[in-house]
Amino acid sequence: MKKADKLRIIPLGGLNEIGKNLTLFECGKDIIAIDCGLLFPDDDMPGVDYVIPDMQYIVKNQDRFKAVFITHGHEDHIGGIPYLLRQVNVPIYGTRLTLGLIYNKLKEFRLEKSANLIEVAPGDVIECGQFKVEYIHVNHSIADAAAIALHTPCGTVLHMGDFKIDTTPISDRMIDLARIGELGKEGVLALLMDSTNVERPGFAMSERKVGESLNSIFMKASKKRIIVATFSSNVDRVQQILNIAKKYKRKVAVVGRSMVTTLEVADQLGYMNIPENTLVDISHVNQYPPEKMVIITTGSQGEPMSALYRMAYSDHKTVEITPNDLVVISANAIPGNEKLVNRVINELFRSGAEVVYESFAEVHVSGHACQEELKVIFGLAKPQFFIPVHGEYRHLKKHALLAKTMGLSDNRIVVTDIGNIIELTSKSIKIAGTVPSGKVLVDGLGVGDVGNIVLRDRRHLSQDGLIVVVAIVDDETKEILAEPEVLTRGFVYVKENQNLTEKIKDIAVRTIEKCASEGYGEWVYNAKGKVRDDISKYIYEQTKRKPMILSVIKNI
Amino acid sequence: MKKADKLRIIPLGGLNEIGKNLTLFECGKDIIAIDCGLLFPDDDMPGVDYVIPDMQYIVKNQDRFKAVFITHGHEDHIGGIPYLLRQVNVPIYGTRLTLGLIYNKLKEFRLEKSANLIEVAPGDVIECGQFKVEYIHVNHSIADAAAIALHTPCGTVLHMGDFKIDTTPISDRMIDLARIGELGKEGVLALLMDSTNVERPGFAMSERKVGESLNSIFMKASKKRIIVATFSSNVDRVQQILNIAKKYKRKVAVVGRSMVTTLEVADQLGYMNIPENTLVDISHVNQYPPEKMVIITTGSQGEPMSALYRMAYSDHKTVEITPNDLVVISANAIPGNEKLVNRVINELFRSGAEVVYESFAEVHVSGHACQEELKVIFGLAKPQFFIPVHGEYRHLKKHALLAKTMGLSDNRIVVTDIGNIIELTSKSIKIAGTVPSGKVLVDGLGVGDVGNIVLRDRRHLSQDGLIVVVAIVDDETKEILAEPEVLTRGFVYVKENQNLTEKIKDIAVRTIEKCASEGYGEWVYNAKGKVRDDISKYIYEQTKRKPMILSVIKNI
Repeated sequence: MKKADKLRIIPLGGLNEIGKNLTLFECGKDIIAIDCGLLFPDDDMPGVDYVIPDMQYIVKNQDRFKAVFITHGHEDHIGGIPYLLRQVNVPIYGTRLTLGLIYNKLKEFRLEKSANLIEVAPGDVIECGQFKVEYIHVNHSIADAAAIALHTPCGTVLHMGDFKIDTTPISDRMIDLARIGELGKEGVLALLMDSTNVERPGFAMSERKVGESLNSIFMKASKKRIIVATFSSNVDRVQQILNIAKKYKRKVAVVGRSMVTTLEVADQLGYMNIPENTLVDISHVNQYPPEKMVIITTGSQGEPMSALYRMAYSDHKTVEITPNDLVVISANAIPGNEKLVNRVINELFRSGAEVVYESFAEVHVSGHACQEELKVIFGLAKPQFFIPVHGEYRHLKKHALLAKTMGLSDNRIVVTDIGNIIELTSKSIKIAGTVPSGKVLVDGLGVGDVGNIVLRDRRHLSQDGLIVVVAIVDDETKEILAEPEVLTRGFVYVKENQNLTEKIKDIAVRTIEKCASEGYGEWVYNAKGKVRDDISKYIYEQTKRKPMILSVIKNI
Repeated sequence: MKKADKLRIIPLGGLNEIGKNLTLFECGKDIIAIDCGLLFPDDDMPGVDYVIPDMQYIVKNQDRFKAVFITHGHEDHIGGIPYLLRQVNVPIYGTRLTLGLIYNKLKEFRLEKSANLIEVAPGDVIECGQFKVEYIHVNHSIADAAAIALHTPCGTVLHMGDFKIDTTPISDRMIDLARIGELGKEGVLALLMDSTNVERPGFAMSERKVGESLNSIFMKASKKRIIVATFSSNVDRVQQILNIAKKYKRKVAVVGRSMVTTLEVADQLGYMNIPENTLVDISHVNQYPPEKMVIITTGSQGEPMSALYRMAYSDHKTVEITPNDLVVISANAIPGNEKLVNRVINELFRSGAEVVYESFAEVHVSGHACQEELKVIFGLAKPQFFIPVHGEYRHLKKHALLAKTMGLSDNRIVVTDIGNIIELTSKSIKIAGTVPSGKVLVDGLGVGDVGNIVLRDRRHLSQDGLIVVVAIVDDETKEILAEPEVLTRGFVYVKENQNLTEKIKDIAVRTIEKCASEGYGEWVYNAKGKVRDDISKYIYEQTKRKPMILSVIKNI
């Protein structure tokens, strides 16, 4: 095999938006990907379920596309896999827990049988065309997370995935700093590093700190039922809650679909050690006095369909919140979820519960490295080139500044957008063109069939609702047959606006008659547009609102 | 006049939602209000412009309703006044700047001539039926803010308004702690206090700190144009920016409608001291080199129509962002606005600007008292009873805990929801019934005509869009005349789904024919419902989406 002298790094996601991670590496004729995630949609994408990266470049080059290497099992790193595998069936590599979570996800899509999932362990090196792919253990808010070193003919590229340095992790070992140090000595061509927490000084706290805080809370709340909401994927945190519950002789019930399934996967694969005689079914929760009970639940982001939300709004079938409850929100609100979380907290307080949340109680720690951790990795890896990834654009810019303070010169740092091709040789880095990239919206079973026009209409409909006017005209005489019909939805209470409806009918009749009398050519088509415009104008004058107006004129 | 022995406090807003402040005080036959604000709507109220408190209790008792006393000129304290005055024309009392801002607002509603605005100064006491209303100077993020002491036959109630303790304010004097201390010595029956920052330990920083931070920024950025985004109502902050600009020999342009009008009002009323030869018109901004220019702008909350937003997205008619710009966001994101603010910051970074924001740079301080300040007021006022106000429910609960740590017993603290009547005597406090209360939605010119059903429809429409099916049947023969028409909006690209449209027509035809053949009674009415259900079912099976389906069947 001819040795390639160029390496191309193509981010299709993850560079400018938190969440949708998919980075391509192209060396010679071979292409591989690291991670394949999805993003949860913003408020300005109503009705959209998920956002995935545009994969057309992969599909177009599928004969050269060899494999996907996953760093860890979070949705923003694995959620796009089913959509990729539907188009291109390549092997998916990952550590054991990561693959367990992927398998579970593929089952929902009935792809679990056809998929080729290959388990790797930290330290393994997979040969894949021009690449030697090495897994390196890191700490994160999910077990079994990894960084990946890509050994290529041009040099070694280190992609840190999502990580932190936890010197006292729960089930894991500490991140393999020694190996990163070795790589640094051997020479790292380029470093790609998680920018999420680049604005936070210092070190992220250890996951163990959460256990200590929870222990104090359990100790003090001896007469109360304790409800802990956290991320289902944080297996170590759930393990700590189980251990503390056992210590204080409490039973534990687990609620929320994702919490239940994740724990099943983690338990089956040996990532949990569930104390005997501790778990009880949620349907039995009311058989135990409050001081003997712990409930672990989803809903830490205030999601309206989640178990915690339903509890807060007295809508859960077995759990009712009372002043005997102490609720711990063991999570931070992800940006954009602040109001949802606050609402749930307010409702819990209204039901008389005590609620512990946010930094006041140190019941959550971040899974992403802060400034000092980033600098440690940088100092060990000593990369020739630096590419900040995983964060908003502002984070990438600040990460670039951090790299400068570590002594790297400007021309060795590339802050870039998705779709750009970063071309590396052993001596240089540059942007060398682009590939198609962008957001693909998933809505129900549809992938990519919701675009800007559909979203614009949805936003329009949501603002001031809709008025539909239907009229029938005689094809020959041009006369209006029967009274026009007016329907409104999301506009105003129609009962209170009977006059408005009558007026709309009047306008429709007058406008149609006028168009008919003037009418040449496609007069019905013209009348449709004119009716819409005339009604729109009238409504705006009367109400200062701009509902969507649909006019239907049928000629028979 | 017979002396009343009971005082009733009725919060119609401000107790459980940040923003819409309107508290009634009823003593004997007299009713007065403190503040009359509006709230900006949540994401789950699409199309709604403002939310105001339900005022029907006031209208019903308008013969007893004497006056409104305003504490300061922020929207959440004055924004409801026009809607109140349209129904009940009573005198509005406030300090000079506050009245200036109210007058400006009333002009938009053409109410400025009929309104009876009465200017008061700190220290003034207004006799109003059973009440003696005393204005007390406080510090806040707007000049001329006041607390109000209500002297009543039952005792003195101190309502702190929105406040902080600023020992080194800009144009103001320090909050009149001495007077609060005197009141405490004379005896305060009840204290109502701002809970916004009850979760923050320590003291809020002085407004002067922002000036110091800005000064360092101006000093370092000697070659760049400086753009500062802040709240238009924070006149002192704008004054500081003007002073610093003058010091560094820069011209200042002001952009954004609310910024321009607020500064005009503040300047006319003597609340500003605009340095000579400093202000230039925004249209001349490109005549000055970057290092000679400062732009003060609205948009610190990332509002999509604001000047800063338009600059960030290269959509502003005179200001283009370049690497020569340093943008300072001198504000914190109000909960719910985080994503908007982040987007603007990312876009500014993309244009190459340097952006300074959040706590990193100390370019903003809060206008609300933190824990130690709250405790100082509490310790001075030594109230018999305590009612936490102005915050989310969780803040009120935490404020109640703070009052307990100050030695007040549980039965002397009332945390309550809007609409409850808090009844006070010189010795007791209790909830004694309720009055009608709630949110009234303002949309365009409509006040209260958008309610839950309309909002539900708007949300439904925004999720998966809309399908309209129109069919015409012959009244006599029950035959379908012409092919049914299908319209969709916000659903999917129809071009890509021609088959779906055809299928929908088929279903409509088949269902109508079936209903016609079985048809007895109101068969057309039944067919409408059946067509809707059948199409809905089919669409869900095919797409897993639930668009709103409107079926129109006209018989002629």
